[in-house]
Amino acid sequence: MTSPPPHAALKQDAATWFAALRDRICAEFETIEQEAGGAARFQRASWERPGGGGGTMSVLRGQVFEKAGVNISVVDGTLSPDFAAKIPGTEAGAAFWAAGISLVVHPRSPKIPAVHMNTRMIVTAKGWFGGGGDLTPLQPGTPEATEDAAFFHAAYQAACDAHDPGYYEKFKAWCDEYFYLPHRNEPRGAGGIFYDYLDSGDVAADFAFTRDVGQAFLAAYPPIVRRRREAPYTPQEREAQLIRRGRYVEFNLLYDRGTTFGLKTGGNTEAILMSMPPEVKWP
Amino acid sequence: MTSPPPHAALKQDAATWFAALRDRICAEFETIEQEAGGAARFQRASWERPGGGGGTMSVLRGQVFEKAGVNISVVDGTLSPDFAAKIPGTEAGAAFWAAGISLVVHPRSPKIPAVHMNTRMIVTAKGWFGGGGDLTPLQPGTPEATEDAAFFHAAYQAACDAHDPGYYEKFKAWCDEYFYLPHRNEPRGAGGIFYDYLDSGDVAADFAFTRDVGQAFLAAYPPIVRRRREAPYTPQEREAQLIRRGRYVEFNLLYDRGTTFGLKTGGNTEAILMSMPPEVKWP
Repeated sequence: MTSPPPHAALKQDAATWFAALRDRICAEFETIEQEAGGAARFQRASWERPGGGGGTMSVLRGQVFEKAGVNISVVDGTLSPDFAAKIPGTEAGAAFWAAGISLVVHPRSPKIPAVHMNTRMIVTAKGWFGGGGDLTPLQPGTPEATEDAAFFHAAYQAACDAHDPGYYEKFKAWCDEYFYLPHRNEPRGAGGIFYDYLDSGDVAADFAFTRDVGQAFLAAYPPIVRRRREAPYTPQEREAQLIRRGRYVEFNLLYDRGTTFGLKTGGNTEAILMSMPPEVKWP
Repeated sequence: MTSPPPHAALKQDAATWFAALRDRICAEFETIEQEAGGAARFQRASWERPGGGGGTMSVLRGQVFEKAGVNISVVDGTLSPDFAAKIPGTEAGAAFWAAGISLVVHPRSPKIPAVHMNTRMIVTAKGWFGGGGDLTPLQPGTPEATEDAAFFHAAYQAACDAHDPGYYEKFKAWCDEYFYLPHRNEPRGAGGIFYDYLDSGDVAADFAFTRDVGQAFLAAYPPIVRRRREAPYTPQEREAQLIRRGRYVEFNLLYDRGTTFGLKTGGNTEAILMSMPPEVKWP
């Protein structure tokens, strides 16, 4: 009988944090809609996981945000033997607990980049944090895309540097490696940071880092939206955006571990596929 | 030293057949476009496979056919050890040869079902045929969808029954099993037939069956297109069609063996993803 990891004592705090972060992000996005003269609000829908726990989807369909989805979930149960074999801390038993927040934004304007972020805490016989954020310009190669990527990375670098001087380089490289489409020989976007299995030995520090990564999203993305939202665009630029969104679909359905694992093992389909762009073209 | 399978002597005949079938199908689709007052023609583009061989994509973007793609390919080389382990006849060597035709049609009108068909011959130390055809109504559950499915199945059943009284039931069931979306708990469409590893011992009969399956497509699908193409539809029906097309994307990128294997092992991306619908929504 081993003692549980210190993360077990943080389950309630972590779940509360992810819900609070969700509320702040949703409020900020609704404010941005209002600034643009819109009145769209997030619609919420809860789901239960047959094996234990559940979650809440929040979806905004607005003027600036063609589709923005924010999921939170707190789930627990027993991992299947196949899956347990890939997860740390399951040698003596396949019980797990996980909570997190996951977000994908598909703006209407091709001038505004799409974005994804998530953070999570997992508890088995071990405990760890994971997450990150990454930006997907829909007009890659333009000066604006370069400027936005630099701004976005700076916000995440600040969050990293406040905790460990090695985090940013390490987690930036991990992000670049993860969000890559081999069949296109292309990165998904402009990167950001990605980390997993974070267990430094100081659980309070790791949780604080994960909170800061979540807050970094609010520093990293809304200013880009406000900077780009009034830029005019042509029907041709809209068309190019819809085609580039196809890459996002290809990545998520072919390679994204959370998506493919979730869909193939009975996860909540609507919540998982909330990440799909609202309109896509493969002409 | 074992002697090659009798299929090896049919390589040229098979490749010639697939190209001839492609020509007949393309001509029929162009005729349907002309009947509708259009002048759209198939655009052809050839590609070479780095490991050996290549293929030709033919894509029609017209009034009736929003996007119709017909691929033929003749490829050869050496299978990777991982892949060879899944392929019959590779115990003594991983050399392979394969030729085939593959087709996906996404009509503009939601009243016309989408369709997929392919047939192929593979030669390793063994040889076999595979293929099939399946229909995807975009307004499932309607009387028209039921009527179209019955007509489509009847054409393939006739092709099957001419060769073996057990083929249709067996290959219909295989199709239903294969084209299924577990995460939606839904079949992809109305089914059809699917067969693989066909090597009855009579290679001439198997090749004749494969030719008849290819010709059955011309009996099964164009009459449905002509029957439905003038039916009016509403913007709401078009929207529902675009959403249902998302299921097609989900199936092909999550489950379709040809798509996922091809993309993950350096196949021709443009040819493989020709199957993607031209416009899709996940609202």
